Amino acid sequence: MSSILRKDQFHLPEGVIYLDGNSLGPLPKSVPARVAAMLTDEWGEMLIKGWNTAGWMAQPSAVGNTVGGLVGAPDGTIAMGDTLSVKVFQAVAAAIKMRPERKVILSDTGNFPTDLYMVDGLTKLLDDGYSLRTESPEDITDFIDDSVAVVMLTQVDYRTGRMHDMDAVTKAAHAAGAVMIWDLAHSAGAVPVDLSACQCEFAVGCTYKYLNGGPGAPAFIYVRSDLADQVDPALAGWLGHDAPFDFDLDYRPAPGIERMRVGTPPVIQMASLEEALKVWDGVDMAELRRASIALQEQFIEEIEAQVPALTLASPRDSATRGSQVSFAFKEGYAAMQAVIARGVIGDFRAPNIMRFGFTPLYVDAADVTAAVKHIAEVINGNLWDNPVYKQRSRVT
Amino acid sequence: MSSILRKDQFHLPEGVIYLDGNSLGPLPKSVPARVAAMLTDEWGEMLIKGWNTAGWMAQPSAVGNTVGGLVGAPDGTIAMGDTLSVKVFQAVAAAIKMRPERKVILSDTGNFPTDLYMVDGLTKLLDDGYSLRTESPEDITDFIDDSVAVVMLTQVDYRTGRMHDMDAVTKAAHAAGAVMIWDLAHSAGAVPVDLSACQCEFAVGCTYKYLNGGPGAPAFIYVRSDLADQVDPALAGWLGHDAPFDFDLDYRPAPGIERMRVGTPPVIQMASLEEALKVWDGVDMAELRRASIALQEQFIEEIEAQVPALTLASPRDSATRGSQVSFAFKEGYAAMQAVIARGVIGDFRAPNIMRFGFTPLYVDAADVTAAVKHIAEVINGNLWDNPVYKQRSRVT
Repeated sequence: MSSILRKDQFHLPEGVIYLDGNSLGPLPKSVPARVAAMLTDEWGEMLIKGWNTAGWMAQPSAVGNTVGGLVGAPDGTIAMGDTLSVKVFQAVAAAIKMRPERKVILSDTGNFPTDLYMVDGLTKLLDDGYSLRTESPEDITDFIDDSVAVVMLTQVDYRTGRMHDMDAVTKAAHAAGAVMIWDLAHSAGAVPVDLSACQCEFAVGCTYKYLNGGPGAPAFIYVRSDLADQVDPALAGWLGHDAPFDFDLDYRPAPGIERMRVGTPPVIQMASLEEALKVWDGVDMAELRRASIALQEQFIEEIEAQVPALTLASPRDSATRGSQVSFAFKEGYAAMQAVIARGVIGDFRAPNIMRFGFTPLYVDAADVTAAVKHIAEVINGNLWDNPVYKQRSRVT
Repeated sequence: MSSILRKDQFHLPEGVIYLDGNSLGPLPKSVPARVAAMLTDEWGEMLIKGWNTAGWMAQPSAVGNTVGGLVGAPDGTIAMGDTLSVKVFQAVAAAIKMRPERKVILSDTGNFPTDLYMVDGLTKLLDDGYSLRTESPEDITDFIDDSVAVVMLTQVDYRTGRMHDMDAVTKAAHAAGAVMIWDLAHSAGAVPVDLSACQCEFAVGCTYKYLNGGPGAPAFIYVRSDLADQVDPALAGWLGHDAPFDFDLDYRPAPGIERMRVGTPPVIQMASLEEALKVWDGVDMAELRRASIALQEQFIEEIEAQVPALTLASPRDSATRGSQVSFAFKEGYAAMQAVIARGVIGDFRAPNIMRFGFTPLYVDAADVTAAVKHIAEVINGNLWDNPVYKQRSRVT
């Protein structure tokens, strides 16, 4: 595990145990210098020439290849940019066109809401009989039939950490003739993913969680290499054009994954992300997974032993859990605020979920033990029962 | 003019005369410190709490109000985020739903290609009889009839600087029952714009040109205040939801302009933009316009007197020109490279346009005279006729 832990590469505030890297990863120490150089030496000194000289134009593809290395995607199959919501839209819009005779987009009730909302917006826009159907995650494969054009799922449930078997669900989708889209928001950098082996048509994800790219870091979209040249981009932006600087009036998609680029890339965010990804040099995802499971098992055992008022809301079997552990507690909101006040940062998800992410790059066994001690004191001592912790803020 | 010029607030490289702020504005000097503080003090120290404590969640609206102040939009009518391409898609998708019985989206051949491409992608996605029609900019109003659902134009032509009369075209669109969308890419921070007076339904724009927000800075979308609550967002992202942190499975748009937000905002880019906008404190747009026209007139007169081989490609009447001047020259690409090699940075747009932007915040009359001297030496001395200047790079 020693080769995985690299706490020294992260800026972690004094006295904080950070169990919320599944929401926003911490700042890698080398990012500020890299961003400063990008601002002053690139934007400041090169001005417009930065697009070529500093490589801003090629950067989304290069960063895409680096992200690809962490999720089993070959070079040239991932485009970076926009937000995860926009990438979901691109994937679903492309996928439904591949099965024009089918009208159902199937997802599960554990999916992150924005994925469902984006499909809702798309189906209303199309106004052509499409419908979004959501079923429970546990038996989602039972609902994949020949009415289903697209199965769109998030591999790891943002609330409970429950994890789908990507290979098995993809096989079921393909057996029924449906197109498979995976959202890897809580997978990339959290669990081993092998997109090539999975054979799904599309995948999307974000980079501000386990990949530590910073708040609002660019999202990614993967298109299986045999399909990229066939996909019709619904968001037909100029940087997805075959020759953007010819300024043709007619759209002609670029070959391959480049067509999934849309507008001007967010160069400052991209510099932050590119630098942040260097933390992953030499990380073996199988080893990371073993370390993650060890931390989670330790946490569950210590919480169950010391804090009986909490009920495990995550699957008990680590093989079906991502890199987070959630506990249900009726006063979860206030309890989490009280825990955070002690420097142990997790988060709360309605209605009653206390959520803790485990990221072996900067969390170790001593952190887990210390975190449990604080949680036990807060819950067992009813320290959450204080108006100051019950006051809601907009973002929880 | 002295109150407009504020060269000292920009990082301008030694020996450079920058006439390309219409492509990428230069770095405001205070941006690096602000971004560094955002990275270290906010992301680094506050971690996930930055969404509330540092105001990241509210920032897109606050920045939108600042941008609104520069384009005559009331508070609460502009949402920041994504790219201009994505904002065009949002606007057109919303606009066509307001005229369901009409199927034509009308634009002009001077529009920036990505606007046309996004409509192309949308019409193919809808596959419901919609068509994009492009006519020449000079007589676009002749083509606005009762088949036209939406008129979508960029006010200032990116190639020639030709400027539409927003009020007149909007009136013509409304007289024919069409919805009006203005792209302000080359207007915001360049010319006075009064969106309230214009009464157009939608406007979009970018902030990395005259607003100096940095490469890939967030875009904006304006929705007329009486319409915002009626618009159905095609890109129905979770941050446009009425209560994003309730994590409802069903989408319910936020009241007003907030529904045009999509995914997680790019906080690092937003910090850069917010800081860059401080340069505009106390700038009077009418005075800026007078200064811009004075620089452009001086440039045209000096070029026409000293460089007869160049042909003005912009309108001669300054009232119908934005804040740039373009000249046609058959070897414009090589000539521009030779001019850039001397520190005078303009850019080239196919097939033969040498383009120069005038930004009175950091360009003065002495710069214009010096720039013309270099251009004259390059063109009159055939200095562009050198293989080193003819080699094409991807981005020009």
